[in-house]
Amino acid sequence: MKNIVFIEGLPGIGLIGKLAAEHLIQETDAKKFAELYSPHFPHQALVKEDATLRLMKNKFYHGTIGDIDLVILVGDTQPSPSNSYGHYEIVTKILEYLMPFGISRIFTLGGYSTGGEVVEKPRVLGAVSHADLVEEYKDSGITFRDDPGAAIVGASGLLLAMGRQTEIRGVCLLGESPGYMYIDAKAAKSVLEVLSSILGITIDMTALEERAEETENLIKKIQDMQRKSMAQNVPEMSKDLGYIR
Amino acid sequence: MKNIVFIEGLPGIGLIGKLAAEHLIQETDAKKFAELYSPHFPHQALVKEDATLRLMKNKFYHGTIGDIDLVILVGDTQPSPSNSYGHYEIVTKILEYLMPFGISRIFTLGGYSTGGEVVEKPRVLGAVSHADLVEEYKDSGITFRDDPGAAIVGASGLLLAMGRQTEIRGVCLLGESPGYMYIDAKAAKSVLEVLSSILGITIDMTALEERAEETENLIKKIQDMQRKSMAQNVPEMSKDLGYIR
Amino acid sequence: MKNIVFIEGLPGIGLIGKLAAEHLIQETDAKKFAELYSPHFPHQALVKEDATLRLMKNKFYHGTIGDIDLVILVGDTQPSPSNSYGHYEIVTKILEYLMPFGISRIFTLGGYSTGGEVVEKPRVLGAVSHADLVEEYKDSGITFRDDPGAAIVGASGLLLAMGRQTEIRGVCLLGESPGYMYIDAKAAKSVLEVLSSILGITIDMTALEERAEETENLIKKIQDMQRKSMAQNVPEMSKDLGYIR
Amino acid sequence: MKNIVFIEGLPGIGLIGKLAAEHLIQETDAKKFAELYSPHFPHQALVKEDATLRLMKNKFYHGTIGDIDLVILVGDTQPSPSNSYGHYEIVTKILEYLMPFGISRIFTLGGYSTGGEVVEKPRVLGAVSHADLVEEYKDSGITFRDDPGAAIVGASGLLLAMGRQTEIRGVCLLGESPGYMYIDAKAAKSVLEVLSSILGITIDMTALEERAEETENLIKKIQDMQRKSMAQNVPEMSKDLGYIR
Repeated sequence: MKNIVFIEGLPGIGLIGKLAAEHLIQETDAKKFAELYSPHFPHQALVKEDATLRLMKNKFYHGTIGDIDLVILVGDTQPSPSNSYGHYEIVTKILEYLMPFGISRIFTLGGYSTGGEVVEKPRVLGAVSHADLVEEYKDSGITFRDDPGAAIVGASGLLLAMGRQTEIRGVCLLGESPGYMYIDAKAAKSVLEVLSSILGITIDMTALEERAEETENLIKKIQDMQRKSMAQNVPEMSKDLGYIR
Repeated sequence: MKNIVFIEGLPGIGLIGKLAAEHLIQETDAKKFAELYSPHFPHQALVKEDATLRLMKNKFYHGTIGDIDLVILVGDTQPSPSNSYGHYEIVTKILEYLMPFGISRIFTLGGYSTGGEVVEKPRVLGAVSHADLVEEYKDSGITFRDDPGAAIVGASGLLLAMGRQTEIRGVCLLGESPGYMYIDAKAAKSVLEVLSSILGITIDMTALEERAEETENLIKKIQDMQRKSMAQNVPEMSKDLGYIR
Repeated sequence: MKNIVFIEGLPGIGLIGKLAAEHLIQETDAKKFAELYSPHFPHQALVKEDATLRLMKNKFYHGTIGDIDLVILVGDTQPSPSNSYGHYEIVTKILEYLMPFGISRIFTLGGYSTGGEVVEKPRVLGAVSHADLVEEYKDSGITFRDDPGAAIVGASGLLLAMGRQTEIRGVCLLGESPGYMYIDAKAAKSVLEVLSSILGITIDMTALEERAEETENLIKKIQDMQRKSMAQNVPEMSKDLGYIR
Repeated sequence: MKNIVFIEGLPGIGLIGKLAAEHLIQETDAKKFAELYSPHFPHQALVKEDATLRLMKNKFYHGTIGDIDLVILVGDTQPSPSNSYGHYEIVTKILEYLMPFGISRIFTLGGYSTGGEVVEKPRVLGAVSHADLVEEYKDSGITFRDDPGAAIVGASGLLLAMGRQTEIRGVCLLGESPGYMYIDAKAAKSVLEVLSSILGITIDMTALEERAEETENLIKKIQDMQRKSMAQNVPEMSKDLGYIR
């Protein structure tokens, strides 16, 4: 591999990064080559379609487009928001794992909450690891941030900020989105459009829109399941009744 | 020991797994052979009937039914719900301890909340470590889950998901239950019926029903005690007044 | 030292254990011989009367009454209630430190909340490390608990439950108290009366009552100070405004 | 360097310490010579004016006034308030780093909340590492505390309390302030006036007042941005939707 591009799409606002990265995996027929498990992930097992259980994990995929090798990171979760230490540890492990590959560029994908405001055509807001990248990508449809003090939480921010100190260069691409309880395929599409323009590739977006619709349905189903859910929830029990002999 | 079956029944929804596993211990006259202590358990001592104090713990029992050796795990508690790291650590220790025994099958017992809905005849929902086990157990009265995305929290999920990676094969059995503040002997009975059918054994359920009644009374007594409780609660004091000299 | 009795009086319900232990220090003119610091204690410095700052700590005192050597543990705080790991670590360190002394008996002092109910003559409820101690101390004015399932939180419970496994024998003495926001000298007096009866010593309680009154005044002063307090509180600031350059 | 004075101004009440220390950096034209990163800091990257991302950090500056060498510590954040362990670790690292320099005096700067009460002329309240320093600084405009039991949270308190045990001598200077959601340049000015009187230096306060005004404007802007913010917030998503495949 020579021209290796690393793309991160872990869960975040509107699942935008995750949707975009998974679509890219599908469209480039990328193959999983590594998995990341951590005791900093939620202590639960997920039920698969064949009724088997698996741990929560992050996954590395490898795909190619032209002469570009894509390494794509997606996954079920990031550490809990109260566990800063876990976030730093996992991002460090990811970078240590990637360093030997010789990553030429990193793109972290995510969302940017408008605070509920619905946007007709979501902008893609950007931040970079090195200042000269603004110049390099200024014609790629990215709105570079000029609000000093803004913060990018989790892997999308840490990978670039830590990568900067290890000479990994890259851009964070955040699609504008009304916010949380909403799977935002429209914003994911905007992010992918910018990314494909940068990489000089063409991505069919049809499946992304269908996927978004399916996902919305799945979410409704899951929210419905939450009351009558399979989740064996330990906390309340162990606190209130766990000391019964 | 040749045909060794491991059964987990730590506290969870409706104390279903704990009730079922403790009943099995009683009915098979199983003997305790090991204890698990952890700094990830709540920092409190429990008062026993003879007024002695003991640490919170998990316990391993050994019993036999026919040619089956049962290793049964029960206990006072699991780590607190905010401590994912502790959950992973304890499940890892349990598996490390069990591996040398050569476990042939693992059953984790628990509850599945219907979100308050009372069910006449609780179903037993299942998930497996390996897909072929669905076929093996399809006539055992288990409703195998087909809701991808559902999660099983704590030891019942993690033991199977982690066991899968160490070639320990097994099934998670979850009895339907209205939910939390309720000791659900009916669901525990359903779970035990499935388990005894699988193991080809007969278990007298009379004591389980009596036990459930006793437990309900004990709970009321304990809830009553909570206000005028022996619990030496440290937090508020140390925060507000602890710095007085 | 031959007949060494260890007494724990760290902060808890009604500061009963702390008040009792500090009174005993005063009355026996015990001398501080060791201090315990921990990163599991609150991250704050305390202002002393001479305007100097010191870390939060626990303190070991040595006193003698007749042929009894007293080792008394008091302090500013215990770890935060969400930090079970810290509680276990500190109690382990305390026991490791004490073991070489050859402790012949341990008494942990604390409170037992009645849930607000004011009691005319507070009982002293007890629990033991070894069952035969109930017989030994049955005429000492202790009401031994027979509520299986009750829990004693923090050092008072853990020291005895862990000490049990290291052959340190002892009793937990809990004075009945209406509960939290109340410095309960009356309950502390009850606890000390039981303890002095056990140790066969006489303790002047006058100062304890005066001390309690002073403490109540100090608390009011401190509560008053909390709004206009010297506390340099970091959290809110660092979360909301800390990212300003 | 011979006469080395260490000044801490990390974020706290009213950002008083931070404002004062940053003004001192500006006025003495101090230069950054070291940075401190920690996995105990919030897991987010900050966007700089040039759209580059950087980790949260603390920074050490070196400046000179006359024959005094100033080492000034400022930064974006302290560990989260629930992470006592992180606070102790970072303060320990800071002291270990500073010890070889041979610090002759340490001043920690911060705020003291009046609980909302606006003060015309903020007093500067003080506490010391060693009792004789009260005498030394009694004519410097410091009101030394005589409220035993008061606590100073975070680095301002810990540095002096821990420094005391490593023979680093110093004073904590806290400007009176109405409290939290308020950038208090007036209190910062009071603190700097005391500090410059002690150090025998003159500091132009004009820029501090302007700076405070700018900061207030920036805060309004940031608060406004919070709804439509760039923050890629992970928690809610990963908890509710993160387990979608």
